[in-house]
Amino acid sequence: MSAYQTLERRFARIAAISDALGILQWDTETLMPPGAADGRAEQLATLKVLSHELLTDDDNADLLADAEHETALSDWQQANLHEMRRAYLHATAVPTDLVEANSRAVSRCEMVWRDARPAGDFALLLPSLSEVLNLQRQIADAKAEALGCSPYEALLDTYEPGGNTDTIDRVFADLRQFLPGFLSQVLERQKILPDILPLKGPFPVETQRALGVRMMSAAGFDFNKGRLDISLHPFCGGATHDVRLTTRYDEADFTKALMGVMHETGHALYEQGRPTEWLGQPVSEARGMSLHESQSLLIEMQACRSRAFLEFAAPVMRDSFGGSGPAWEADNLHRLYTKVEPGFIRVDADEVTYPAHILIRYDLEKALIAGDMTLNDLPGAWNEGMRSLLGLTVPNDRFGCLQDIHWPGGAWGYFPTYTLGAMTAAQLFDAAVRADDGVMPGIARGDFSPLVSWLRTNIHAKGSLLPADELLKQATGRPLDAGVYQKHLASRYLEDA
Amino acid sequence: MSAYQTLERRFARIAAISDALGILQWDTETLMPPGAADGRAEQLATLKVLSHELLTDDDNADLLADAEHETALSDWQQANLHEMRRAYLHATAVPTDLVEANSRAVSRCEMVWRDARPAGDFALLLPSLSEVLNLQRQIADAKAEALGCSPYEALLDTYEPGGNTDTIDRVFADLRQFLPGFLSQVLERQKILPDILPLKGPFPVETQRALGVRMMSAAGFDFNKGRLDISLHPFCGGATHDVRLTTRYDEADFTKALMGVMHETGHALYEQGRPTEWLGQPVSEARGMSLHESQSLLIEMQACRSRAFLEFAAPVMRDSFGGSGPAWEADNLHRLYTKVEPGFIRVDADEVTYPAHILIRYDLEKALIAGDMTLNDLPGAWNEGMRSLLGLTVPNDRFGCLQDIHWPGGAWGYFPTYTLGAMTAAQLFDAAVRADDGVMPGIARGDFSPLVSWLRTNIHAKGSLLPADELLKQATGRPLDAGVYQKHLASRYLEDA
Repeated sequence: MSAYQTLERRFARIAAISDALGILQWDTETLMPPGAADGRAEQLATLKVLSHELLTDDDNADLLADAEHETALSDWQQANLHEMRRAYLHATAVPTDLVEANSRAVSRCEMVWRDARPAGDFALLLPSLSEVLNLQRQIADAKAEALGCSPYEALLDTYEPGGNTDTIDRVFADLRQFLPGFLSQVLERQKILPDILPLKGPFPVETQRALGVRMMSAAGFDFNKGRLDISLHPFCGGATHDVRLTTRYDEADFTKALMGVMHETGHALYEQGRPTEWLGQPVSEARGMSLHESQSLLIEMQACRSRAFLEFAAPVMRDSFGGSGPAWEADNLHRLYTKVEPGFIRVDADEVTYPAHILIRYDLEKALIAGDMTLNDLPGAWNEGMRSLLGLTVPNDRFGCLQDIHWPGGAWGYFPTYTLGAMTAAQLFDAAVRADDGVMPGIARGDFSPLVSWLRTNIHAKGSLLPADELLKQATGRPLDAGVYQKHLASRYLEDA
Repeated sequence: MSAYQTLERRFARIAAISDALGILQWDTETLMPPGAADGRAEQLATLKVLSHELLTDDDNADLLADAEHETALSDWQQANLHEMRRAYLHATAVPTDLVEANSRAVSRCEMVWRDARPAGDFALLLPSLSEVLNLQRQIADAKAEALGCSPYEALLDTYEPGGNTDTIDRVFADLRQFLPGFLSQVLERQKILPDILPLKGPFPVETQRALGVRMMSAAGFDFNKGRLDISLHPFCGGATHDVRLTTRYDEADFTKALMGVMHETGHALYEQGRPTEWLGQPVSEARGMSLHESQSLLIEMQACRSRAFLEFAAPVMRDSFGGSGPAWEADNLHRLYTKVEPGFIRVDADEVTYPAHILIRYDLEKALIAGDMTLNDLPGAWNEGMRSLLGLTVPNDRFGCLQDIHWPGGAWGYFPTYTLGAMTAAQLFDAAVRADDGVMPGIARGDFSPLVSWLRTNIHAKGSLLPADELLKQATGRPLDAGVYQKHLASRYLEDA
């Protein structure tokens, strides 16, 4: 067996463990009885250690080097080998004691954060967050050396393979210029629109679920290889052939859960569309978090919040819940689903103000990792960002720099992928609509198949064959361009009504 | 770290993998979307291989030998080490190529069996069943050499550690003498009892489930560390801290699902009562399948089909389903739950005729493994057994030797544990009632805690500390005794009404 083939077998094992972990983690969030938590933590930790041992096996360095000299590898095999190397570098770059110190520090910091956030007490979080940041900087240095990039990019690479700050700085600078003025225009215009009429509930969970299933099916979700369930924090998880998404229902308001389901469905379509013949190998995996978020936002923001889709969906929603009257008309639902209102909390933000939350976090985490700023200055810098970008005065760190679990949880370098995803979604949707004039009429009749077919071919089935920027270029004819996103926002929020 | 401590760490890993497998297998039977089956098979196979590799690691022989020379081990540690050795012997006794050949033969034979059974076509099954038997005999020989027992006992040992045919032959001979005459008496007596009145449904699934949960709670099931769900084939599975049992509901008849739930609850109580401080180690595990079955039958047959319990349960059942009239009285429910009727199918058999099904299978599989009989003679010998023990003429192998998946599935040496379990249940229940005069009054008011408390102390919390026969002797004051079981049957079916 060649070195490459040996590696394929090892990575297939790692993928099977990863799938097992995916199902166990799904179970943890959805069905596990509370008293099973410690045992489950033990199961998860054991499988992660086994997977890590397979990935960092002493032989792998030689196998990778030998395989990289094999000459008969196809493009897909070469890309697969490249992803194996990348996984190996990430797993071996950081000394074991640093990995363990980080894991302990993160656990401690998350626990403190659960008290500090509701109390708005940044001083309480500061010592343990400093510890996490300190370790993250060491991890970033170690990975930067192995990957040959800057420390911040080394962290970013975990979520966004090959991601670089030059590109992000460029497109985020564009946005920073654009956003404040655009937001004022949108808010002005909103004033002259008719008031949003409230939808009268209650909306029974079973009916909401049935509506969600119907819309998921319309969007192309394959229930033969996936499920919809309930969890406190909605997510898309599960395993390769078994994509499980979750939501949380509020019987007083169905609109959030429904759009949440469509968001997760976008993630799920990406997972269900990965290249069949490469499943179980690294090259079959989704090409990073920006592209993953682009798929969820493409379905939620580009397709499902469009007027075309809401014209189709309005009577379906109305009939599901036995509603009547003007509140259930597409116009009103469209106003409801495109309402813009600056606020303090990222996860509640609308499409227009969301990027502001990301711009702030990106600047801050980049400066903190680079050592250009200390955590003592974090609350002040955060609040200044909110003032300058959204015109808001943060009353309390609970509504400011304490709101997200990412930093206490050790996820540094993750935030930019949200807005990169939003921009990528706009650019891909624009390309799909231009490439196939059946896309918009399909959405208008609740048939996403022309859209999904284009995504399958151009994104999903490509797995990790290409770098993200090359994938985007091949799919849309150009590199990431903030202009398409701005055009989308202008069209929806200044022109459409 | 001592050799013993190193082994404890390895076996803790193996236990965590086994727990992960338990949850994944539960998910496979309950919730998994159909299209995920291949991926799930891959996950299960990978985890099993990893577990097998840990168990058969080259170091383990030395570690076991070194640990067996350590002098400071406690009783529990010694018993734990003994179970480690046993697991190691079972895992290493059989050459890998034989394990793989058996695994393939079993898969093939199970597939053929799925066609042969409904067609009643034994000739169709014969070639692949011969292959399985041939491989099982080779496995039995290899294990017999490693364990120092007879080939049949070597297979039995997988399910019933330390089980021996002398004991089984003795108690089964007793039963064989007793059963035919006893059955005639029971059938005669049943003729003079009032007719069983039918319970009128439908019985909605949700109501059945709520009743099941109520009865499980009464019996002491801890829902903080377990669940009740639905599957086609009811079972008790899951993980150490997360015991999950399943049932299947029939809206026309709630009585079977309810008693099925109580049966699985008996298994679950055993699992939930294992010794807390040894969880994750082999010594914490249940002491074999006979004892496991004894716990399910103790709850189902001894406790829940007793008149005392049904006096308590009858009004609860009636009120749950809004029933009324004499059909819902304890007398009628007791007659329903203790009805005896010889039949062809083991899984449908009542408490009195069930052992006959086992006696037949035990004799046959022992002779087949010993080479004293060939598969060509199986249908004839089976049918003769049914005639002599139950007075029935098997019309077709579908209702005869084709009915069970055990032999095609490679589970040879399993069958006797069902009836050993029934006898053990009777003996333990008898001892519990004599040891604590609160047991029966507790059951009569739906409070199983005195019974479960006795079981916890005498069985559950002992894990695998003692051999099964010693455990039974310490708990009941005597070795396995078919007489107690016969007394129970006589008391319920000839005296009670």
